[in-house]
Amino acid sequence: MSPPLKIGICGLGTVGSGTFNLLHENADLLKARAGVSLDVVHVGARRDNPACDLSGAQVSRDIFAVAADPEVAVVVELIGGTTVARELVEAAIRAGKHVVTANKALIAEHGNALFALAVEHSVQLRYEAAIAGGIPIVKALREGLSGNRIEWLAGIINGTTNFILTEMRDKGRDFADVLAEAQALGYAEADPTFDVEGVDAAHKLVILASLAFGMPLKFESVYTEGITRLQPQDVAYAEELGYVIKHLGIARQTNQGVELRVHPTLIPRQRLLANVDGVRNAVLIEGNAVGPTLYCGAGAGDRPTASAVLADLVDLGRATGSADPSQLPALGVASGNLQDLPVLAMEDVESPWYLRMEARDKPGVMSGLTSLFSEQGISIEALIQKAPLEGQTLVSVIVVTNQARQGSVKDAVRAIEGLDSIDGDVTCIRVEQLDG
Amino acid sequence: MSPPLKIGICGLGTVGSGTFNLLHENADLLKARAGVSLDVVHVGARRDNPACDLSGAQVSRDIFAVAADPEVAVVVELIGGTTVARELVEAAIRAGKHVVTANKALIAEHGNALFALAVEHSVQLRYEAAIAGGIPIVKALREGLSGNRIEWLAGIINGTTNFILTEMRDKGRDFADVLAEAQALGYAEADPTFDVEGVDAAHKLVILASLAFGMPLKFESVYTEGITRLQPQDVAYAEELGYVIKHLGIARQTNQGVELRVHPTLIPRQRLLANVDGVRNAVLIEGNAVGPTLYCGAGAGDRPTASAVLADLVDLGRATGSADPSQLPALGVASGNLQDLPVLAMEDVESPWYLRMEARDKPGVMSGLTSLFSEQGISIEALIQKAPLEGQTLVSVIVVTNQARQGSVKDAVRAIEGLDSIDGDVTCIRVEQLDG
Repeated sequence: MSPPLKIGICGLGTVGSGTFNLLHENADLLKARAGVSLDVVHVGARRDNPACDLSGAQVSRDIFAVAADPEVAVVVELIGGTTVARELVEAAIRAGKHVVTANKALIAEHGNALFALAVEHSVQLRYEAAIAGGIPIVKALREGLSGNRIEWLAGIINGTTNFILTEMRDKGRDFADVLAEAQALGYAEADPTFDVEGVDAAHKLVILASLAFGMPLKFESVYTEGITRLQPQDVAYAEELGYVIKHLGIARQTNQGVELRVHPTLIPRQRLLANVDGVRNAVLIEGNAVGPTLYCGAGAGDRPTASAVLADLVDLGRATGSADPSQLPALGVASGNLQDLPVLAMEDVESPWYLRMEARDKPGVMSGLTSLFSEQGISIEALIQKAPLEGQTLVSVIVVTNQARQGSVKDAVRAIEGLDSIDGDVTCIRVEQLDG
Repeated sequence: MSPPLKIGICGLGTVGSGTFNLLHENADLLKARAGVSLDVVHVGARRDNPACDLSGAQVSRDIFAVAADPEVAVVVELIGGTTVARELVEAAIRAGKHVVTANKALIAEHGNALFALAVEHSVQLRYEAAIAGGIPIVKALREGLSGNRIEWLAGIINGTTNFILTEMRDKGRDFADVLAEAQALGYAEADPTFDVEGVDAAHKLVILASLAFGMPLKFESVYTEGITRLQPQDVAYAEELGYVIKHLGIARQTNQGVELRVHPTLIPRQRLLANVDGVRNAVLIEGNAVGPTLYCGAGAGDRPTASAVLADLVDLGRATGSADPSQLPALGVASGNLQDLPVLAMEDVESPWYLRMEARDKPGVMSGLTSLFSEQGISIEALIQKAPLEGQTLVSVIVVTNQARQGSVKDAVRAIEGLDSIDGDVTCIRVEQLDG
């Protein structure tokens, strides 16, 4: 048997301690699978974690001591953030060490430079844990589906928003109420902005898209819309129409450019993806050979994330002593072969739309509305006028359009909002059929 | 760029021609991903296939000429069967060539010897396409979940039986009727025995189990029960009870041994797996770190199967010129580290059971039944007596037990069948909660 793979772990928070402990708990089978022992020889953390027995490993308060340790072959970056983490990863790569990270923000925002640096130094930068927790989705795209041209993918890639949407649907609760509960349960951070505004999902989506399409990471080009403005009545109307509202990251190849977008989306209730509830994640991928495949599981948590970190470590362990693992490109194709695909402007993105407006219950309102859609060349799939509530003069009108250009829909919406018969703003949510 | 990976394809049937054509259709992206061109230089087939333009490749009527061709680096075995296919794969390995196959029967029945031969000759024998078509499930188990001790897995791994069960449930049709339609649609073979009796699923299950648990292939130890005796009324009663009947392959680690079994199974309707309908396949895997993860997609067909063959070829291409790919063990651990785990006898397997019996509608029947269960230490989760149909003296009684040893259940069933008040045999179907 080859000598051990010597690992340095930086960060002993939830994921760091989970990874450290899982390496010990599953040590025998990891050794059998990797063909080498996976030994943690150095831990860098500002303080010890009482959940971890650190005897046997060197411990440094300065994480950069781990990156500089000549004994360490792989640095596992689990400190989070994008400033110190970036310096740490760069230092490790420059010192000739492989890096494994769970840091989606780091990869999404600085991945292009970091991957290039890793190639330059002939080391691997692995990030299976950065997306969808323990679901091996990076491996599926980079290797399992490598025979396919990927047409599109759509994912529930933030567990917090999925938990909130599930509760809103199942119990008719409103957003703020469920968010408070999610915070109490530890599913949402004290500052939930990254989750509920879609930034976390955008980080993951851009990595998935680059893997799928072989393009550089373009985090700044992702359209991002959160779930904070979703109303319980829209969740209920969607259900009446046979849909479920999910917060999706969507990437699609079109002839005009790549779509990169994160937003609430109505999807048909009978899709498996519509039935992925609670904090779970799932990604649906359409390949030109395999058709649609779905991957579902825990998207966060110490042990699911550690599972993904260990998969990367086992891969590196298997390559130890024989392989030049730089043959496995970080984004599925060698950096020289990445295609700088243009990103489609959101106004050119086509999809059906769900639109809800509050109308005064007077004759002629409907024909006024439908003629505005018709002027923009938008055809209507369904139009529902709810009965007015007792004592109310406003009625909800719900329109589901057929496939339409976003620019045309927004023009129609502006015209509708200018009508005397319409009160306030029109609620606009995209629809996707996801039927391959 | 490294020189091309030179491929020989044996067999030009549905999968062979699909693979040949997909290699051409996706040639540019395959080259970008693999880092080398994937070139078909030799095709072995008894006759040409008009769907394939074979110009540019050498064509032999004798497939063994492909295995002997010094130019060929990888032989793709797509002829099927276990006799000639085995000779071909052995010849290719002895000639120092990697082998990629879609042949589940070959791997399930002869994999132990073939993997050992491949190690001896320092070549890879890859078989992603052998299980669940284009779903990268071999890669998920061998690599993506390598950080986990796998507790159990349960899969819908035969599309024909899943199509038949879906139709039986949705339309209340009986088995023979749907089978005839499936044959007309091409979803079932003229001789459907391998599918509907569960042999095909058993081939796939034993490979999944060996990958999951790191044990040698034990095809002869798989308990196999098909769907031919399923009655429409049991499908309907299952639905009443909140379950769906699926034909599952199940493998589980217990302290007494490994469970390896293929049989119809009631599973709760709300599980994602219960909603995988039609010819689709899906595998649910429970790992000790990641928890449950689900993989779903097309389980058969020329292009989904070709997708999996190409994934194996891209892996080999990426390793060309640098790696010793024998570091990736065929069953996830090196053959010397495989554990010869005992297989649990079926009578010791524990699960809940669905039992249906036809009883004469007389006082005392129920108490007679319940005391027989009680004598065997079996507790009852639900007991339903249907109203007798007009003019009938027999009523259906349905019992769902709690977790119980199969031996005890079978003893109770024998005693029940001996009661004067019971007519005919008791219908017995296992139940799994699959709740991790």
